[in-house]
Amino acid sequence: MDLGSFITDLAAIVGPRHVLSEVGDLAPYQTAARYGGGRALAVVRPDSAEQVAALLRLCHQHKIRLVPQGANTGLVGASVPDGSGEQLVLSLSRLTGLFDLDIANRAVTVGAGWDLDRLNEKLAPHGLWFPIDISASPSVGGMISTNAGGSRVLRYGDARRNVLSLQVVLPDGSIAGDLKGLRKNSTGLDFKQLFIGTGGSFGIVTAAVLDLQPLPKQTVTALVVPRDLEAIGPIQALLDGQAGEFLSAFESMSGPALKAALHHRPQLRNPFGGPPPEETLLVELMSSTGADQLDLEALLMAVLEQGYESGLIADAIPGPPAELWALRHAISEGLRGLGRVIGLDISLARGKMSAFRAEATEWVQANHPGLLICGFGHRGDGGDHFNLVIPREVDADYPPDRVDGVRRGIYDLLVGRYEGSYSGEHGVGPVNLAHHQIHADPAQQALARLLQNHLDGDGLLGRVRW
Amino acid sequence: MDLGSFITDLAAIVGPRHVLSEVGDLAPYQTAARYGGGRALAVVRPDSAEQVAALLRLCHQHKIRLVPQGANTGLVGASVPDGSGEQLVLSLSRLTGLFDLDIANRAVTVGAGWDLDRLNEKLAPHGLWFPIDISASPSVGGMISTNAGGSRVLRYGDARRNVLSLQVVLPDGSIAGDLKGLRKNSTGLDFKQLFIGTGGSFGIVTAAVLDLQPLPKQTVTALVVPRDLEAIGPIQALLDGQAGEFLSAFESMSGPALKAALHHRPQLRNPFGGPPPEETLLVELMSSTGADQLDLEALLMAVLEQGYESGLIADAIPGPPAELWALRHAISEGLRGLGRVIGLDISLARGKMSAFRAEATEWVQANHPGLLICGFGHRGDGGDHFNLVIPREVDADYPPDRVDGVRRGIYDLLVGRYEGSYSGEHGVGPVNLAHHQIHADPAQQALARLLQNHLDGDGLLGRVRW
Repeated sequence: MDLGSFITDLAAIVGPRHVLSEVGDLAPYQTAARYGGGRALAVVRPDSAEQVAALLRLCHQHKIRLVPQGANTGLVGASVPDGSGEQLVLSLSRLTGLFDLDIANRAVTVGAGWDLDRLNEKLAPHGLWFPIDISASPSVGGMISTNAGGSRVLRYGDARRNVLSLQVVLPDGSIAGDLKGLRKNSTGLDFKQLFIGTGGSFGIVTAAVLDLQPLPKQTVTALVVPRDLEAIGPIQALLDGQAGEFLSAFESMSGPALKAALHHRPQLRNPFGGPPPEETLLVELMSSTGADQLDLEALLMAVLEQGYESGLIADAIPGPPAELWALRHAISEGLRGLGRVIGLDISLARGKMSAFRAEATEWVQANHPGLLICGFGHRGDGGDHFNLVIPREVDADYPPDRVDGVRRGIYDLLVGRYEGSYSGEHGVGPVNLAHHQIHADPAQQALARLLQNHLDGDGLLGRVRW
Repeated sequence: MDLGSFITDLAAIVGPRHVLSEVGDLAPYQTAARYGGGRALAVVRPDSAEQVAALLRLCHQHKIRLVPQGANTGLVGASVPDGSGEQLVLSLSRLTGLFDLDIANRAVTVGAGWDLDRLNEKLAPHGLWFPIDISASPSVGGMISTNAGGSRVLRYGDARRNVLSLQVVLPDGSIAGDLKGLRKNSTGLDFKQLFIGTGGSFGIVTAAVLDLQPLPKQTVTALVVPRDLEAIGPIQALLDGQAGEFLSAFESMSGPALKAALHHRPQLRNPFGGPPPEETLLVELMSSTGADQLDLEALLMAVLEQGYESGLIADAIPGPPAELWALRHAISEGLRGLGRVIGLDISLARGKMSAFRAEATEWVQANHPGLLICGFGHRGDGGDHFNLVIPREVDADYPPDRVDGVRRGIYDLLVGRYEGSYSGEHGVGPVNLAHHQIHADPAQQALARLLQNHLDGDGLLGRVRW
């Protein structure tokens, strides 16, 4: 293929300004937020589904592989090209032309290029929000194609649950799906489900109708120190039974994780004075009912008091949400301050979490004694970032295959003995595809391949061949 | 095929007591709750996934078509055999061996044969429930394969949203899926989604892990008369903004529907004294927070008062939930008391409902002036049972093709002009398959056929060929 004439063809579709091929321009599109990165053939930035469709047809003609990219905040390496220099980055961040707020349907139709923060800024004056909460501002298309989760899944669900309709461009360049925004629809195969969480491998999400939630009028938070690890489940059950509809976050932070956060950001107030306890919970209640009708803070205090009296809770420290979340959000950076992080985005049925963590901790200590175990995560929905850190001083002893051995060992234990998931909320990409192929249900893998072979027989879309 | 030896083979799998082939025994399995019915070759009642798998392999060998049936409460004719006498009814109501309540995960693993009422009876002592609410007691498998909706979708979602995991037997007799109960999982194609709402056409759901909700400690209801039809949307927005997390039902009942209900059940108290208004809403709030922390009735009254003062609400009549729901639930029978019902299970984006109903009403009056329009339904999530009644005295003038013409006319308007759905919550079966094939997205139909041809090339499962 003649690159020059291909670039000219791309430019004819999107305009010359939106085809990037100079080395300096490519950099931000080539490197992923955390893992992975490569070299792009070029970057193309369409601004409509029609342009995406034309690009897919052109690439089909030339057998050029496309890597869809939103805000490039993904954590499994799926939004960046490999090292071959032959893959075209399909940047979807200009798909922001569509923004159609339907107040009566409490839903918004948006282009896939909108990012979470800008979307919520635009919704706030209407008393509405899109309740996915993660420490990044991914694009709408990115949240959908990874089925993003985050801190408030236990109340609001994952991206899947908050999508009413999808428009997609199929690999053959046809535009499919709909933007009807139905809240109830039982007409056989739910087409949109195929494109949620599949990383753009079956088609490119170009627009979506998102379900919205009333903005909370009250938010209250507290740090809760459980009596011991066994008390965490009963504390959640207590909150669920007494304040279930308000419970919007139930996060856990291990002592080492919190210590790293406090060390990394000395300006944060240490709520414990001294070293943090073995485990601390961040509990949040939210309500869209005003304080004149419901004293949410009093409710939280009453439930925690009950937990204290029954011996489940050793200590409870109420505090302003911004302050407590700042602690929680400083953990990732804090861990990176300690060394190289082996991020593990896992999930389990909630009741199995303590036993898994105990056994995994033992396994790490026995097999990889140099690693620091700094777990934290979305305990309330069974999500856990059981993260391990290779301290700076031993980094050189951990070549990539040894890191991979750590992952393999943890996933074997997690999936084999605890029926957990090796990807709770980040999706599947080059970073974890090999593990997926080992651990995923063979029937699921067979159907994913059937769909991919049918829709994208030439294998031109995305970084994943199922 | 030799029927006698086939029956013997069936009996070898499930035991002779669980193969029914006498005419008298077949009756309850041959006729659907509302529409459709035929003649079964036999009925077979397995009690495990392994038996289901063996039955599918046997039927595959003899090319016998199987019709899966749960509690046989479906409304699209998909759970009963056709008139050929060649289809085997696969009754799944004995799949009740599995009942594994996981309190820590607030989830239950159950066999597909459990029915809604018995399931909720068993969960109640634990302060939990499965929050699908419909005027029937379908099986778990039936709710999943039709993606059942009901009255509380606006708060709790449809069946799809409340399923964590599925075990299915594929047409080739293999057992697939899992019963892990994960609340967070982003590992590519979400296998279970293929079997939700597809009427058993891709495989037989044999067990599921269901998400559960804390049982409400308080439930309050009121009938609300809107100023006019235009006020209904703003009344819902008001409730959503002031009491969003509690709003568990927002049903509408037209004057003719309510009149039919009151006429049919004279023992029901008429809350209006005289004839019911053009439209009445049934509003329900539920909370799992106790009355000591939250006065839910006062909250409802305060919001309704606000609606009254702003002129949106003409009248609000609080009343005990049992009494108000009895009115709502008497409608279906009331309509059948008037004549032959043409049930229309439709849904739309909420904001389009009034305009659609006005135009559909005009169309019916112009083209089918003999019909009574008796709409009611789940207004809060855009669901509407825009039901029409052929009064007894004109019944003979409405042969099947004329009834079908009514449906066609309404669906053309609904889908073509209002982007609505011809099956909001009942699924797709022989009753509406022809309409589905006209109105469904061609890309969706193509993928459904791809999956069906791959999984069930001989077309042996269920009543629907996509």
